[in-house]
Amino acid sequence: MPLSEGVLAELERIVGAENLASDDATRYVYGADASIHHHPPDAVVRPGSTAEVSEVLRLCERELVPVTTRGAGTGLSGNAVPVRGGIVLEMMRMNRILSVRVEDLYCELEPGVVFSALNRALEPHGYWFPPAPGSGDVCTVGGMIANSASGIRTVKYGATRDLVLGLEVVLADGTVLEVGNRGLKNASGYQLEKLFVGSEGTLGVITRARLRILPRPRSSGSLIASFRSLEAAGAAISQIYRNRLMPSALEIMDRNCIQAVKRKFGTPLPDAEALIIVEMDGDRRVVEDDLRAAGEISRAAGASDVDFATDPARTARIWESRKQVLPSMASSGERGPVSLADDLGMPVSRVPEVLRTFAEIARRNGVVIGAYGHAGEGNIHCKVLIDTKSKRDWEGARRATDEIYGEVLRAGGTVSAEHGIGYSRGRLFRAERGASIGVMRRIKAALDPKGILNPGKLFDAPDDMLSDNRYITGECD
Amino acid sequence: MPLSEGVLAELERIVGAENLASDDATRYVYGADASIHHHPPDAVVRPGSTAEVSEVLRLCERELVPVTTRGAGTGLSGNAVPVRGGIVLEMMRMNRILSVRVEDLYCELEPGVVFSALNRALEPHGYWFPPAPGSGDVCTVGGMIANSASGIRTVKYGATRDLVLGLEVVLADGTVLEVGNRGLKNASGYQLEKLFVGSEGTLGVITRARLRILPRPRSSGSLIASFRSLEAAGAAISQIYRNRLMPSALEIMDRNCIQAVKRKFGTPLPDAEALIIVEMDGDRRVVEDDLRAAGEISRAAGASDVDFATDPARTARIWESRKQVLPSMASSGERGPVSLADDLGMPVSRVPEVLRTFAEIARRNGVVIGAYGHAGEGNIHCKVLIDTKSKRDWEGARRATDEIYGEVLRAGGTVSAEHGIGYSRGRLFRAERGASIGVMRRIKAALDPKGILNPGKLFDAPDDMLSDNRYITGECD
Repeated sequence: MPLSEGVLAELERIVGAENLASDDATRYVYGADASIHHHPPDAVVRPGSTAEVSEVLRLCERELVPVTTRGAGTGLSGNAVPVRGGIVLEMMRMNRILSVRVEDLYCELEPGVVFSALNRALEPHGYWFPPAPGSGDVCTVGGMIANSASGIRTVKYGATRDLVLGLEVVLADGTVLEVGNRGLKNASGYQLEKLFVGSEGTLGVITRARLRILPRPRSSGSLIASFRSLEAAGAAISQIYRNRLMPSALEIMDRNCIQAVKRKFGTPLPDAEALIIVEMDGDRRVVEDDLRAAGEISRAAGASDVDFATDPARTARIWESRKQVLPSMASSGERGPVSLADDLGMPVSRVPEVLRTFAEIARRNGVVIGAYGHAGEGNIHCKVLIDTKSKRDWEGARRATDEIYGEVLRAGGTVSAEHGIGYSRGRLFRAERGASIGVMRRIKAALDPKGILNPGKLFDAPDDMLSDNRYITGECD
Repeated sequence: MPLSEGVLAELERIVGAENLASDDATRYVYGADASIHHHPPDAVVRPGSTAEVSEVLRLCERELVPVTTRGAGTGLSGNAVPVRGGIVLEMMRMNRILSVRVEDLYCELEPGVVFSALNRALEPHGYWFPPAPGSGDVCTVGGMIANSASGIRTVKYGATRDLVLGLEVVLADGTVLEVGNRGLKNASGYQLEKLFVGSEGTLGVITRARLRILPRPRSSGSLIASFRSLEAAGAAISQIYRNRLMPSALEIMDRNCIQAVKRKFGTPLPDAEALIIVEMDGDRRVVEDDLRAAGEISRAAGASDVDFATDPARTARIWESRKQVLPSMASSGERGPVSLADDLGMPVSRVPEVLRTFAEIARRNGVVIGAYGHAGEGNIHCKVLIDTKSKRDWEGARRATDEIYGEVLRAGGTVSAEHGIGYSRGRLFRAERGASIGVMRRIKAALDPKGILNPGKLFDAPDDMLSDNRYITGECD
């Protein structure tokens, strides 16, 4: 049901004509995020202040207009696709960094600030906001909070959720809430600031955030090691932790990723089943000691090639292959990558046995699976490579995805560590969360009784998300 | 209303006669925690398993029996005092450490495990669970989670809330929930594991926890510096952060604390207005560099006495005065300490100006105020010293408390950083949280519709908590 003239006129009064669009082209663009899903909104609204957000929500609740909040649209699970129509509330105009308070160890900002812009603002102070999602040059901090985003440095520095100290949030009925506080601790009632983290726009709209900031490390260095087996790589990772080393990043690439990178870029990588990259940061002397120790551990676990560096140029070369994974997969001959089983979470030590099952799953379903990601946090990303024009291949990808997530859940894992549930993972999410789903629904009903905020997502996402959507290939990091 | 014979018989069937008590002596003891409040339960129930907890809750919900969950009873805000009667659910029998998984960076345990026992179990692995509450030798991990506890190392290593990866929780109706996961990240729906942190037993009963563990630092050292003014101490703390130093602890003591320690123990402390203790940990070389830098910063900020040490004996001496604060206040001549304004949270940089107001507040109300605590996190503890047998002194303490919290809220602070709201802080909590209170109530109603879990606490705590309770003096750290 399209919006009435009356509602459009009210929206225009609230945000101004220049911040409201309902033409077909704009509606088409805002129907997509970085996932495979698409559904156009009836209008796109770009608020400039908390007061405007509040007024828009009050109107939408009264008129029962669905509201899908959106940052930069980099979500990989359809989180910001307005599957029930209504309005997309695009937060990019609210992009001011309000304060950088090093002496209080926090900064305050509006939700539309881009992750890398925040870090550019923190850099002159010698501070940073460490979680580094793959889309960090584009994605907004508001989206990171709503999506419970993280990245390659979470193992040492925590995820977004751990660094949110306080939020200003607008509820469905327009109420403006302050949650959390200005210190580093909070024992003053329910930790609502954490409840909104990962709620994917279903509980409220974030209009301001207070984030913990940390001193930038004084130096860093990285190690690369390749292994004949996944299990040997896993043994090295276990030994790194048993030896009380705490990397700032610990990444893995499987054989298919290594081969794709070699084929596409000619990067001189060994013919290994697994490759790990370990970053250490801090005082230079300690970084060097720790890299040396990690190198010895890797060799003892059977690594054939081990190299490490602390100077920027050589460190960048070590990371080159990791950065080449996505582009090399995106043009892997006949096949293109689909982000179906894109975000697996599991206990760190279970990574080798889960990845071990992928070759057989791929063979059985006629697809290719490439796995890589944050092994040190038990967070693996997957690309299923198929001929995206072949219905049979899509069916194979769908079966492979089910089998991959079956292995993940058997290993005590989760169907999303950092990409969110959105529209993509309804059935898997319900299978994983069991009785918790009922509790989440009760909380949703308590905070948004009319169900206007991002309807059709999370617990309400469909069992078969491929059934009513066009296919687009996405990518993740 | 006492429990019926039928309910007592059912409870006995569930947990066994040896784990149920309703005699007057036991009821009296379990009527108190470490706060000034007291109200006896009708019975004390000591479950031994999740299944028993579930059965007890099902029974209590059916019969509308209030359930107040309790660990070691070290809470300072009446969190575990059963102010509406019913049963105290004492979790100390469920005290097994189920696994220590260094290779997965987590451990799993039952809620009755004592904080220091957990750390003794982690020590052979070279790991620890860092938050160190003052009651760490006694308090349980379940209580720490329920209370959103933290301690002196939170500035560097996070609070309990940041380290909870997953929980098993029993809801009021007996449903057993698994929340959170086994990796270090979670983007799979609402972060319910964080919602139960700090819920003080009002949303469910924690029966199992999965906690992030961290490598023990390789060494540590400490610095002590005294300042002629609070502002100079504050300037030193600001400069420490501006210089990108990250202490593992950063404590402060005000003049009254310094004087009390000198009087009681004869500890040779300078005649200063403020004293800070800074702990650095990590690689020994870096610890020494950082302590030296912190010493220079302190001197530049006007510190008169600066000393630091990395050997255990001298480090212990530096910490001696901090550890003497509580005992020296407990026997401060005619006056005893009361824990009314015991737990102030505020932006780190606002600590000096807030503490500056205390002398005038004390004079105006005829009391003595001693302030100390975790200045590096903006978390200050306060003792109001009064003649506890004098009604006039109690009135003065009450007014002083109101004025202290008034200053805290004006500085953008919180009425509880780590001790919780419990029964003590209802009015202040409502004043601080405003519209959020309504949201918390809605969540409470959604999860515990019959209101059997720890009734009369948090948003339902009374405006004047001194009106219907006997006075007992408590202590905090």
